[in-house]
Amino acid sequence: MRGKFISLEGGEGSGKTTAIQFIRQWLDDHNIPYVMTREPGGTPLAEEIRQLILSPRSERVNDITELLLVFAARAQHLAEKIQPALAHGTWVISDRFLDSSYVYQGKARGGDIVMLDQLSQWVVGDNKPDATLLLDVAVELGQERVVQRQHQDRLDKESLAFHQKVRDGFLERAQADPERVRVVDASQSLDSVKQQIEEQLVKLNNAWTGNS
Amino acid sequence: MRGKFISLEGGEGSGKTTAIQFIRQWLDDHNIPYVMTREPGGTPLAEEIRQLILSPRSERVNDITELLLVFAARAQHLAEKIQPALAHGTWVISDRFLDSSYVYQGKARGGDIVMLDQLSQWVVGDNKPDATLLLDVAVELGQERVVQRQHQDRLDKESLAFHQKVRDGFLERAQADPERVRVVDASQSLDSVKQQIEEQLVKLNNAWTGNS
Ligand SMILES: Nc1ncnc2c1ncn2[C@@H]1O[C@H](COP(=O)(O)OP(=O)(O)OP(=O)(O)O)[C@@H](O)[C@H]1O
Ligand SMILES: Nc1ncnc2c1ncn2[C@@H]1O[C@H](COP(=O)(O)OP(=O)(O)OP(=O)(O)O)[C@@H](O)[C@H]1O
Ligand SMILES: [Mg+2]
Ligand SMILES: [Mg+2]
Repeated sequence: MRGKFISLEGGEGSGKTTAIQFIRQWLDDHNIPYVMTREPGGTPLAEEIRQLILSPRSERVNDITELLLVFAARAQHLAEKIQPALAHGTWVISDRFLDSSYVYQGKARGGDIVMLDQLSQWVVGDNKPDATLLLDVAVELGQERVVQRQHQDRLDKESLAFHQKVRDGFLERAQADPERVRVVDASQSLDSVKQQIEEQLVKLNNAWTGNS
Repeated sequence: MRGKFISLEGGEGSGKTTAIQFIRQWLDDHNIPYVMTREPGGTPLAEEIRQLILSPRSERVNDITELLLVFAARAQHLAEKIQPALAHGTWVISDRFLDSSYVYQGKARGGDIVMLDQLSQWVVGDNKPDATLLLDVAVELGQERVVQRQHQDRLDKESLAFHQKVRDGFLERAQADPERVRVVDASQSLDSVKQQIEEQLVKLNNAWTGNS
């Protein structure tokens, strides 16, 4: 039986990595085989592409260059890691996926949506996640959480207006495809977030075994 | 006045790098400002992408990944190096450009031509070279020349059948766009090749000054 493909989406500090720990726990408890991964990245080559995208650099990065790099990494990730795992019955949990491209390269940076749609069709096609958990939190709260961490990369250094576009962009993605993109209220306590996520996992697992 | 954009194309060992030395000499003699560059590469980021493409690796490289990496590098190269130089009146001489993508990723590896056309339109658009010098030589002769050199990268290790597709692919590009792609018989002596190239440079320079 084919594994389930779940992506985690949300702005910086929304709690994606934390949510993945909850998912890991739940999958372990249910003896479900899984692989954790992330975007950009997920294979050695895709991780090298990630480095190119995220490294601070003095050279201005052309918008189309960034978009093509993101989809180059995604094509590799899907072909060499995600698809083989799913075919093998393994669940795949990815920290970010397609929606982040629409939100960061599209909505927030004003990238060409026609280009995004075309790349999405070529690279992802019908291989979208079975469920996307959108960790939604007010920009200010997400930023508060982020400042407590050390590491800052190129994308972290954006303005509040940018982060607001990101939040709005994700919510638009959820509105456009509510069946797949499920909004988790990430302003709540960790316990509440954990509970919201487990609800979605139960639904997904029941759908899988035909009991939904 | 806008600079001229010249690309050098041809299989491995056809003499592109050698031809560039002839061009350099001619431009120096005519006091024409120029910049020499190459693809994939040409800017620090594009050169890093080049490394990703050409490095031998155990991971299978997905065809779409390779294609998107090549065009990501090209978008950067055009935006950050080629276009500013041309606008400044500087000639740009590139060791490989768009035709190599059609030939290597398209013809030789069976890549999707619709995808190539779309990427070409997005990334290159009307910014094609003013002239492309195609160094054409029989596969066997090109290979003989190559084996005398040390360095071998991933693309070098292909079969003769592959190299034949490459040669055919370049000749098809010339047939489809003979105004831009000018075939140089690179099986000839270095002196003859030099002469053929200088003829093209004179034509191009005359066109530039309106005397052609
Ligand atoms: N619901 C929550 N309540 C309080 N703190 C939280 C909550 N969720 C996450 N945090 C804390 O906020 C910080 C950011 O969380 P996390 O690293 O999971 O976010 P992220 O979405 O993965 O961020 P990034 O996009 O930068 O990877 C961490 O210190 C985490 O412990
Ligand atoms: N017309 C020629 N006659 C004889 N030898 C040549 C001729 N052109 C090039 N060579 C030699 O063949 C070798 C390959 O030439 P060159 O490096 O210019 O090819 P290239 O197209 O740049 O190859 P690559 O695609 O690997 O970069 C060099 O050793 C060069 O000196
Ligand atoms: Mg995280
Ligand atoms: Mg060369």
